[in-house]
Amino acid sequence: MSKENTLDEHLLIQKYFSDIGSAYLAERNVELSVGDDAAVLNLNPDTQYINSIDTSIEDIHFLSFISPRDIAYRSCAIALSDLAACGANPSWYSIALTFPKADHLWLEDFSSGLNDFSDEYKIPLVGGDTTKGKLSVTVQVMGEVKKGKALLRSGAKENDLIYVSGVIGDAFLQLKELKKSQNQDTGFDAYLNPKAQIELGLELVDIASSAIDISDGLIQDLNLVCKSSDVGADVHLSMIPTSVENKTLELINSGDDYQICFTASEDKSAKVNNISARLGVPITEIGKITNTRELTLIDHEGNKMDLESGYSHF
Amino acid sequence: MSKENTLDEHLLIQKYFSDIGSAYLAERNVELSVGDDAAVLNLNPDTQYINSIDTSIEDIHFLSFISPRDIAYRSCAIALSDLAACGANPSWYSIALTFPKADHLWLEDFSSGLNDFSDEYKIPLVGGDTTKGKLSVTVQVMGEVKKGKALLRSGAKENDLIYVSGVIGDAFLQLKELKKSQNQDTGFDAYLNPKAQIELGLELVDIASSAIDISDGLIQDLNLVCKSSDVGADVHLSMIPTSVENKTLELINSGDDYQICFTASEDKSAKVNNISARLGVPITEIGKITNTRELTLIDHEGNKMDLESGYSHF
Repeated sequence: MSKENTLDEHLLIQKYFSDIGSAYLAERNVELSVGDDAAVLNLNPDTQYINSIDTSIEDIHFLSFISPRDIAYRSCAIALSDLAACGANPSWYSIALTFPKADHLWLEDFSSGLNDFSDEYKIPLVGGDTTKGKLSVTVQVMGEVKKGKALLRSGAKENDLIYVSGVIGDAFLQLKELKKSQNQDTGFDAYLNPKAQIELGLELVDIASSAIDISDGLIQDLNLVCKSSDVGADVHLSMIPTSVENKTLELINSGDDYQICFTASEDKSAKVNNISARLGVPITEIGKITNTRELTLIDHEGNKMDLESGYSHF
Repeated sequence: MSKENTLDEHLLIQKYFSDIGSAYLAERNVELSVGDDAAVLNLNPDTQYINSIDTSIEDIHFLSFISPRDIAYRSCAIALSDLAACGANPSWYSIALTFPKADHLWLEDFSSGLNDFSDEYKIPLVGGDTTKGKLSVTVQVMGEVKKGKALLRSGAKENDLIYVSGVIGDAFLQLKELKKSQNQDTGFDAYLNPKAQIELGLELVDIASSAIDISDGLIQDLNLVCKSSDVGADVHLSMIPTSVENKTLELINSGDDYQICFTASEDKSAKVNNISARLGVPITEIGKITNTRELTLIDHEGNKMDLESGYSHF
């Protein structure tokens, strides 16, 4: 594969989009711009606003045979997951929907999925745009945090413990099943109806030193934390929570897990366990931050694994 | 054509998206939601924030052979035009870019267009998402107005004069030329590099009683003002400013004119003329608001024209 095809989304955004209009960041009250899970905006003295935008495309982010209701719900939950990783309380969302033709049954079902989403997170849809074309859904979400409290990728410190929420790889396993069966039965919630870990994010404010949404793959995304924080990480494959015994690199780094990977100093571990119990969300320690500037994945025999692969959008 | 194919974007958004999560509008500080040019959000006591999202798709909103720089600039200006029509001062924007492959030259040129846009309106890009697929650009823009000052569609009153900025139909004429020549020379600015009428919108706060961006067609969009304001309008074809003599309905209602149509009471006409002179933006009176609840277009002989057609997205 040529280099230009292996350029991942993060590098691409970094290279072409990270400095556009940066001269106007201060005068427009933008505290954090392109490069974290979301942007941080100072719109009033006590609160910071967190903004994120995400596109979901047929056959890439959702299968074409899943219901419009699930397409809508999933596209919104995916976008909201970036806000969860910032510790933000969601405020509202807008969508830009592109679809091939105005089919009323389809639109009604899609609209039900938006209603499910609005009801679950108690936020209104405030605007939208519809255009004709291949099915895709772009969702913009905005939320708020108390000033200075946003969870960012940049705060991880040596010896911090690394945690991950939920079970890793279930969406990948369910997607494989769905592709085989082409039949959308029950039992595919990790893929079809992912939950944005909003409550967990809110609890982690003041506890986590850094956080990231791991939708592009646990290892790839944790690596972004390491880069932003200028640290390294030792992660133990055996400690990563999965629902099957065979913890392949593909399984744990497949993406589509709308979970949070975060770091916290060791003295916070009792609090982390407490949050996990209170919310009923599994939180698992998977390794430790190091001063090596390198992410190392350690296999069952204690050997360093090859990390050349990883999910790339292009 | 079946009814479902003629459903226009406005009706479609109204029908399927206008009430989603509306139970949470008040608690999330949303003053105006789906249905105007943009949403109005109360995020701090003195300022209201205006949010809009717009998708531009290859072969629909821009021709495939125009330069990536023009694609980027045009997509952003189109989205910003909704903020202009609200009288908002732009704050920042984010983009979701879908494109088939990571071509560095293409991306560099696209990125230059974003820089042009950022520099022209002095706003930073604060975030983005890139996905693989057919070329499309979704731009979200946010701006601010003083509390209660947003220009909306709903304030037009009987006997208000109706004005339009700029020259109508030039984008349509240029698009026809471009399709013929397939060659992007100079002289196509109305289509390739439309300007969002931000300064005009800012000046119209406290002067206009209603305003709308006329990108979907002057008549179609003015009709939305009539509906929102519960009034009618008499528009004189001969008064509509065009650069050619033959003022066909197709020409004046073709869309792609990123101009503002607004209403103001007669006693504001000197101020309106003054703004036009000061900004160097043509502003033309084209008719009057009536109490008929009907939009009537009057031809050169004083006869009522048939208004069945109009630009529809689907």
